[in-house]
Amino acid sequence: MNTFGKSFRCTTFGESHGPALGVVIDGCPPGLSLSENDIQPALDRRRPGRDPLTSPRAEPDRVEILSGVFEGRTTGTPIALIIRNREARSSDYDELRDVYRPGHADYTYQMKYGIRDHRGGGRSSGRETAARVAAGAVAARILSEAGITVEGTIEEIHGVSDPTGREEEIRRAMAEGDSVGGIIRITARGGPPGLGDPVFGKLDARIAGALMSIGGVKGVEIGDGFAAARMKGSEHNDQMDSTGFLSNHAGGILGGISSGADIVVRVGVKPTSSIRKPQKTLTRDGEETVVRIGGRHDPCIVPRVLPVAEAMLCLVLADALIEQQKYRLFQG
Amino acid sequence: MNTFGKSFRCTTFGESHGPALGVVIDGCPPGLSLSENDIQPALDRRRPGRDPLTSPRAEPDRVEILSGVFEGRTTGTPIALIIRNREARSSDYDELRDVYRPGHADYTYQMKYGIRDHRGGGRSSGRETAARVAAGAVAARILSEAGITVEGTIEEIHGVSDPTGREEEIRRAMAEGDSVGGIIRITARGGPPGLGDPVFGKLDARIAGALMSIGGVKGVEIGDGFAAARMKGSEHNDQMDSTGFLSNHAGGILGGISSGADIVVRVGVKPTSSIRKPQKTLTRDGEETVVRIGGRHDPCIVPRVLPVAEAMLCLVLADALIEQQKYRLFQG
Amino acid sequence: MNTFGKSFRCTTFGESHGPALGVVIDGCPPGLSLSENDIQPALDRRRPGRDPLTSPRAEPDRVEILSGVFEGRTTGTPIALIIRNREARSSDYDELRDVYRPGHADYTYQMKYGIRDHRGGGRSSGRETAARVAAGAVAARILSEAGITVEGTIEEIHGVSDPTGREEEIRRAMAEGDSVGGIIRITARGGPPGLGDPVFGKLDARIAGALMSIGGVKGVEIGDGFAAARMKGSEHNDQMDSTGFLSNHAGGILGGISSGADIVVRVGVKPTSSIRKPQKTLTRDGEETVVRIGGRHDPCIVPRVLPVAEAMLCLVLADALIEQQKYRLFQG
Amino acid sequence: MNTFGKSFRCTTFGESHGPALGVVIDGCPPGLSLSENDIQPALDRRRPGRDPLTSPRAEPDRVEILSGVFEGRTTGTPIALIIRNREARSSDYDELRDVYRPGHADYTYQMKYGIRDHRGGGRSSGRETAARVAAGAVAARILSEAGITVEGTIEEIHGVSDPTGREEEIRRAMAEGDSVGGIIRITARGGPPGLGDPVFGKLDARIAGALMSIGGVKGVEIGDGFAAARMKGSEHNDQMDSTGFLSNHAGGILGGISSGADIVVRVGVKPTSSIRKPQKTLTRDGEETVVRIGGRHDPCIVPRVLPVAEAMLCLVLADALIEQQKYRLFQG
Repeated sequence: MNTFGKSFRCTTFGESHGPALGVVIDGCPPGLSLSENDIQPALDRRRPGRDPLTSPRAEPDRVEILSGVFEGRTTGTPIALIIRNREARSSDYDELRDVYRPGHADYTYQMKYGIRDHRGGGRSSGRETAARVAAGAVAARILSEAGITVEGTIEEIHGVSDPTGREEEIRRAMAEGDSVGGIIRITARGGPPGLGDPVFGKLDARIAGALMSIGGVKGVEIGDGFAAARMKGSEHNDQMDSTGFLSNHAGGILGGISSGADIVVRVGVKPTSSIRKPQKTLTRDGEETVVRIGGRHDPCIVPRVLPVAEAMLCLVLADALIEQQKYRLFQG
Repeated sequence: MNTFGKSFRCTTFGESHGPALGVVIDGCPPGLSLSENDIQPALDRRRPGRDPLTSPRAEPDRVEILSGVFEGRTTGTPIALIIRNREARSSDYDELRDVYRPGHADYTYQMKYGIRDHRGGGRSSGRETAARVAAGAVAARILSEAGITVEGTIEEIHGVSDPTGREEEIRRAMAEGDSVGGIIRITARGGPPGLGDPVFGKLDARIAGALMSIGGVKGVEIGDGFAAARMKGSEHNDQMDSTGFLSNHAGGILGGISSGADIVVRVGVKPTSSIRKPQKTLTRDGEETVVRIGGRHDPCIVPRVLPVAEAMLCLVLADALIEQQKYRLFQG
Repeated sequence: MNTFGKSFRCTTFGESHGPALGVVIDGCPPGLSLSENDIQPALDRRRPGRDPLTSPRAEPDRVEILSGVFEGRTTGTPIALIIRNREARSSDYDELRDVYRPGHADYTYQMKYGIRDHRGGGRSSGRETAARVAAGAVAARILSEAGITVEGTIEEIHGVSDPTGREEEIRRAMAEGDSVGGIIRITARGGPPGLGDPVFGKLDARIAGALMSIGGVKGVEIGDGFAAARMKGSEHNDQMDSTGFLSNHAGGILGGISSGADIVVRVGVKPTSSIRKPQKTLTRDGEETVVRIGGRHDPCIVPRVLPVAEAMLCLVLADALIEQQKYRLFQG
Repeated sequence: MNTFGKSFRCTTFGESHGPALGVVIDGCPPGLSLSENDIQPALDRRRPGRDPLTSPRAEPDRVEILSGVFEGRTTGTPIALIIRNREARSSDYDELRDVYRPGHADYTYQMKYGIRDHRGGGRSSGRETAARVAAGAVAARILSEAGITVEGTIEEIHGVSDPTGREEEIRRAMAEGDSVGGIIRITARGGPPGLGDPVFGKLDARIAGALMSIGGVKGVEIGDGFAAARMKGSEHNDQMDSTGFLSNHAGGILGGISSGADIVVRVGVKPTSSIRKPQKTLTRDGEETVVRIGGRHDPCIVPRVLPVAEAMLCLVLADALIEQQKYRLFQG
């Protein structure tokens, strides 16, 4: 299942060290102005190597639009975007060919498929998210036309919320050959009420599924999230007066449908799985071994998850916005 | 979107005070022994009024199998289950016809559809989950054949984990005309490695979407969840030796695919929205008003969410188990 | 796959001799006036036993709306319709329990599922189409609001187009213990241009799939159909002037998208499979036998296929009409 | 809707004169040997300019595999294939920018989207089928492993079945600045019984939808097709003895499920829409005009539809074959 969305449908493809990554977007409304320049900045933002704390790999991700755009406007036909993999030091991974790296998908892919592209994690690599970010940029264009903005922020790294302290946590982990996780909050502003469907297609259900589909995300909250479990109804309910909602504990969604208030989501990200510290594991033949993962790895993936999480929220909202048009049939 | 699942697909229908609730299950494998007796106990367990702390409404939910079963076995054709609504004191809700209850979907349904069945919340009522529980019981039959069990437990109510203290919290909320929330943990044991798909169809993504689709759920965690965001890689990674995984911080899922370890999920449930305490809100005409919600309402929905959460996990796993058969084509 | 449609999605269930047949419609726009009285006439029209040439079985199909309608209007939530099976002389079929009837799905269901409900054909019975007709009546209500009508006619029976001669063909087949087929033409008038999607979702592709999904249909044509294969481009192309199209060889669809001209479809229906004449076949144990199918069977199913074919075209068009709303996002 | 299939899902993209065409295949079983060499011959076969009667455009379609294959085997992840558009004389089409060509999708695309890529028909061009043929070659690899072959043949051109006469028909049409259509028959051999689902997912319904989705196809028949409408039940039913079916009027499908007999399909193809003869039409501004379509166009597209029709049948069967694996859960 490499397709996401119902009416704005994105199908991604590509492995970390294959020829290219990409996405086909089916269902983008026609008439939207779009060029590579609308997409490239989002990819640049996701790109590693921008600061000393992220992986120094140079990944000059260049997006190319292959279809669906004519004279600067979308035509309603599928928009295919590809990003060629340039630097692909596959040999870095030769020694990991037959070893299951702890915390990675090596073991489970082998169990599922009986074959796997071990180079850089193959399809399970974080690199796959470049395609999501590209698609998210198209979704953001749609949202922008509708007056909706999506913006995320890092709340904490390894339990520390102060920005200086956060950097310190990452530096320390790097020095130790270890890694740290963190928490991200994303907010969508300006959306109309009415997005999302009842029951299984609830907007919060789609958001939770979308964000949990990002590698490394282990928890998702809407509005007050788990804190709501420790509140009383009289504290948690968002009362209304003629100015609108008096609070936003619900995070902008009631009964699975957007209320028009800000949509607020938090995600918990685990520490990077690739660490230099020695770890016990198995080889593909079932023999015990100890692995130390060398190479270039971010000691903290939270900064790189941030644009992906924003992209996924954009995808959910653009999809819901298009879906919602269907109700205009008898409502004018 | 009232359909859940890809290969084991459940489509639910029904309003709180309409003639009936139900579900059509499309994709149940043929040859499975099944009768109403496999489903009724799950409905009975979900039923309110079983103890003094839950709503005293008598809802003698009787499931009827309308199709898909022949001489006690499934035939591979759709299984339709219905549950008639018996007691439906719609008049209890007359005064709420034009008032948006805080914390409920009244406002958002009105915004989305321009019309809503106000009686007992209509489609957004918790009563809708009876159909999910019925479908979940069929899914549980499939899992049972495959040696998989799903079981949930209440971890805390209003921040209290001790069972006696939990009851006390509920009693106090009831006395105050208020309500409380809580946290549930669900564990699936005995599943094979290989369930789930990469990228958007990750098993944890499906689980998160499934559980967040339950009314009142505001947060979902897999394995260590948000706590992982405060751990180091060396603490969080599950190492392996020849006996298997040495820990289960991941909650049984790596790269979106099950590892064979226990699948562990936690959900945070908000306090019941319906409370007797006065709350500010609006009427459908936009006028300010104060509402006190009378009638029979659980001061804590956590015990009733528990079987629904189990049912949803069963639906996800049965679906993934059937999906996984597709890979047998060239793998014997 | 018992679900049809993308935005107006119908999931049907039920066996010929089970407790009930039905359909859940997900995606019906809210605010549409709807009651059982809008659906019952279509079912009555489909019903057998209305004239001496159709099967004398009394099937007083009564539709009941279980959900999705409130105070006479659709609410946007799923509409469940059920039809109880009343008269079910299952014992009529006891002798066919282990025999594969030629032309029927007995053999293929057994091969696929390893189990089958043999009573009256079970799920493969023509009776399943009652649910389609019920759903089609809801679709027709939507089309009616949009000014679209769908109407079918029998073109020929056993090669004879004259109505009196057609009756004669049926009578003769009945007397011989044999059966005959025929051809139906359906026309949709008043539809807007723009319905249907490119490539795999072409309107004609959806129509062909929809009509071929009716039991007994062996051929589908759009516009001139197979006759177009014997025409020249200069004869077949529909030229335009300021009054519109000067002909309609295309049958109202160009490049898979409706042009606004009448949509014209023809379907070829095979002779009824159940005949009294002796036929060679196998038992479930693989033994040769000769079967003579007794009981009450239409010598020609064409008149009963007619309302089903109309219903399927209504389903396709209502779905496409709702889908088309999505393009209004940037087109006003 | 540019996605086809349920378990073997192909999403195509690309315009006639855009940078590239392509397809993403999601759901291909892992472990299948696959390289560009398995796909290129099918593309070469589809390619125009191979004989004097087809369009002389040189389209050196080179397929590139971008993902999903590792060391010569499929990995179970999405397989992306692209074909760059090399020769793209867009200026040939400048004069057609604002004119609706009769028989083409120009008018309907404009009505649907309000914008269209007029160059060579854009997305509605026959060139789009290159992506289908590429995907079909992958499907054919799967079928080959399962012992299934798919092969088509031209039955007639402009009503003539003799091969020499057929060529003559095409030559005459070309000389006249006109075009002709024809009929294709495709046969799948070696398939197992049990493929296809009841009701809306019938194998014949999927085949009809698949074939009707090819531009220019106006009719589809299974087995005897429309001729069955003129037969008696005793003639049409395929009787069985211990050697199997004694005839194959049904075309290998009963009740929507394959019987194991040859699957036989016929499609009627209309004459090429682009002709040199003058035709009345409208400009985008609604003004009457006369168009003579110059440039290089096949006077008969039937030979080029043939490999596309084969490809579509391969896609349907590979999808059904993978789907069918799901039933192995309780059937061993």
